[in-house]
Amino acid sequence: MPGLLQRFLPREEGFFDLFAKQAANIHAGADALHKMLTHYTGVPEQVQIVKAIEHEGDEITHALITKLNQTFITPFDREDIYELSNRLDDVIDLIDAAASRFVLYRVDSIRVGTIDLVKVLVSATAEVEAAIRALETPDKALRHCIEINRYENESDRLCRTLIAQLFDEEKDSVQIIKWKEIFEVIETAVDKCEDVANVIEGVIVKSA
Amino acid sequence: MPGLLQRFLPREEGFFDLFAKQAANIHAGADALHKMLTHYTGVPEQVQIVKAIEHEGDEITHALITKLNQTFITPFDREDIYELSNRLDDVIDLIDAAASRFVLYRVDSIRVGTIDLVKVLVSATAEVEAAIRALETPDKALRHCIEINRYENESDRLCRTLIAQLFDEEKDSVQIIKWKEIFEVIETAVDKCEDVANVIEGVIVKSA
Amino acid sequence: MPGLLQRFLPREEGFFDLFAKQAANIHAGADALHKMLTHYTGVPEQVQIVKAIEHEGDEITHALITKLNQTFITPFDREDIYELSNRLDDVIDLIDAAASRFVLYRVDSIRVGTIDLVKVLVSATAEVEAAIRALETPDKALRHCIEINRYENESDRLCRTLIAQLFDEEKDSVQIIKWKEIFEVIETAVDKCEDVANVIEGVIVKSA
Repeated sequence: MPGLLQRFLPREEGFFDLFAKQAANIHAGADALHKMLTHYTGVPEQVQIVKAIEHEGDEITHALITKLNQTFITPFDREDIYELSNRLDDVIDLIDAAASRFVLYRVDSIRVGTIDLVKVLVSATAEVEAAIRALETPDKALRHCIEINRYENESDRLCRTLIAQLFDEEKDSVQIIKWKEIFEVIETAVDKCEDVANVIEGVIVKSA
Repeated sequence: MPGLLQRFLPREEGFFDLFAKQAANIHAGADALHKMLTHYTGVPEQVQIVKAIEHEGDEITHALITKLNQTFITPFDREDIYELSNRLDDVIDLIDAAASRFVLYRVDSIRVGTIDLVKVLVSATAEVEAAIRALETPDKALRHCIEINRYENESDRLCRTLIAQLFDEEKDSVQIIKWKEIFEVIETAVDKCEDVANVIEGVIVKSA
Repeated sequence: MPGLLQRFLPREEGFFDLFAKQAANIHAGADALHKMLTHYTGVPEQVQIVKAIEHEGDEITHALITKLNQTFITPFDREDIYELSNRLDDVIDLIDAAASRFVLYRVDSIRVGTIDLVKVLVSATAEVEAAIRALETPDKALRHCIEINRYENESDRLCRTLIAQLFDEEKDSVQIIKWKEIFEVIETAVDKCEDVANVIEGVIVKSA
């Protein structure tokens, strides 16, 4: 039972709490990007919302590294905690990079298929969140990692198809350059989810 | 001498056998891409052959990870076995990515120099196979890693030259976009061979 | 006090000396690229200067790996020494890749903003050099790593802005392709500085 002092002190957040926060933040970022593209109005403001989520991610990453430097006994290898928080940070960076392209490239309207690709990203980030929440039950975490890999294959296939369609349908080469990159940046965000899954699988493999 | 039971059971494949299989599969993938480009007919069918080799690679990677999760004593660090099988998997994924571009981008004929670049990839994968087969004799494995690095430098130089020629000779900007990417994807496959060499060198450096 | 023999033998270079040399070489490479772009004459000769610095980097990397293979007790984990020297090598490779583009793509004159981006690269490499020199005083090294991350954010933001301007101002799509890649390669060189910072932070986190 917690003592009087502890009941008044803010409950200290552990590594698993912070990772869960970081993963939920990524999922929120993907949702915000999806919402922005389905209601394609007030785009600069919606890009700022994604940017704010990315800043929030930086804060959580910073809190994780600070905690790591102040903690002697960690729930798993120090370097894996460091690696995992950095790989989670990469995902939200790429989501922000994708959102910002729509303003920077002055995109007027969304090409068919873009939202399908972002839906795969949303699903992949949901699985990242689930995998992180299951970190203490390896079998469950591994099943979510397999799902992340499956979504990565799906986004890769869809991205290739969208770029092939782009070459078939779009005659303006500047539009081809812009959209090819937009598709690729979204696909890279899903790749970064797979990098997170790889770190999780690596941690589990080590402790097996 | 193996007992009666063992003689009837399928011989269990060890980590080194599985890595050798995975490396041979990569080499086969590079050969199939080379063959497809030298006889540039029936391209969709030949792309399917590369795709089938890539699926075979997924099976071997899966077998490696499963074995890792079921094995207590491993020939080298668990995380390095995991890392090596993932990096080998990346090579065949990139070879498949390169092959698929020729159908997706509706490439009619092969530009001069493409086959030279793929020949460097074939040589690099041959060295990957040799390095993997020599894993138990570090000095020999390191010599093959040096060769892989040499081929990576060569593919980098050749890729830069081909892209410069592309800008000099091709006036159609859509063709420039398509071919620049094809050259870059093939070069990235060779980069991934270098990543494999880096893991092997790292394993050897650790145990020195 | 060193004995007679040691005074006559060339002083053996330790890992820290070699890392300091490798980092100084990277900084020199960024300076040479900056100088080349500010005085944009005799460009092929100036590209050769950067190339020579990149070769020098290969020599130092080779000396580091050789020393690693001959040394039993190392100042930090063997695999981190290997990783750090490889990540430092990546930075100079990318600086060379950036320089070579100006000749390969027959660039006549430098677009506004290019030198600002290269200045961020020069600052980032100065911080890499400072971080490496401070390897034995973790608090100081971490402060330089934070600066490297700050420059990486700055180069990312600047690169996005330059590419947006490129799309706004340039009508020739071939010029867009060439300049987009030049900006991206310079930005990737700064990314590689961040990878170096990540290895340093990882080493410090481990030993905390």
